[in-house]
Amino acid sequence: MKSNAVSLHQIAVCHTDTPDAHVAKNRKDMITTIRVFAPYREGLVGIEAYSHLMVIFWMDRVTDLPLVTHPRGDTAFDKVGAFALRGRNHPNSLGLAVVQLLSTESNEITVKGLDAFDGTPVLDIKPYDDYDVVQNPRVPEWFKQKSRTRN
Amino acid sequence: MKSNAVSLHQIAVCHTDTPDAHVAKNRKDMITTIRVFAPYREGLVGIEAYSHLMVIFWMDRVTDLPLVTHPRGDTAFDKVGAFALRGRNHPNSLGLAVVQLLSTESNEITVKGLDAFDGTPVLDIKPYDDYDVVQNPRVPEWFKQKSRTRN
Repeated sequence: MKSNAVSLHQIAVCHTDTPDAHVAKNRKDMITTIRVFAPYREGLVGIEAYSHLMVIFWMDRVTDLPLVTHPRGDTAFDKVGAFALRGRNHPNSLGLAVVQLLSTESNEITVKGLDAFDGTPVLDIKPYDDYDVVQNPRVPEWFKQKSRTRN
Repeated sequence: MKSNAVSLHQIAVCHTDTPDAHVAKNRKDMITTIRVFAPYREGLVGIEAYSHLMVIFWMDRVTDLPLVTHPRGDTAFDKVGAFALRGRNHPNSLGLAVVQLLSTESNEITVKGLDAFDGTPVLDIKPYDDYDVVQNPRVPEWFKQKSRTRN
């Protein structure tokens, strides 16, 4: 029987000029540099061949949040569970963002669209490929309404 | 100064009839039931409104692998780093798959396309939405060649 605990380590850190309070609403246009720690830098070899990446980060400033919430705090919509929402209340505070790769150096990459605070620890970087593209995914009604009013 | 260690916990487990040795090649057609542990089941409320999900799992049977490898073991292609490959050699053994949601029960979901072994611990489930769709992502030449020969 395995333990339920899993131990990970930070492999990189996010740097962005966007203030924490602006991250949610500026998400799509945010520019972030991800500095990869020395032992893992070789992992970046070849990454420039991709236009997009998926970044898994650790939302290290999340406090305990309820597992079921109104989508984006709007009481007009029924409460949904954490797994039905890209929110901050997941049992493990993992963030996941599809980002555009803008440039690559030997020890860092610069990306667009990463909704993480300055200083956020990064746990993994994965290339985005054809298998990640879903044409016309079905989403809930609240998502459609909230997306329309977001920009 | 924060520690580099991050502690997560298993929130669910994968069950599939696909033998481990067939996971890589049957990936797209694999059917998997993800059984969510009792404390986290309420997190599934509303998930049926989505057609696709992203599943973050823990590749608990990975042994130490080099950070730089030939794509899919093919020496015809230059070695690339772990962050440029959806392989098993990431510094943190996190797996990430975009899957199709087939059905939902109160304590489990059944999905298609999850390339995880039977018994694999799940760390997070996130809904796939419009922000995750990239039209015509750029991928490396080796990926195009390998994808063409895969099915």
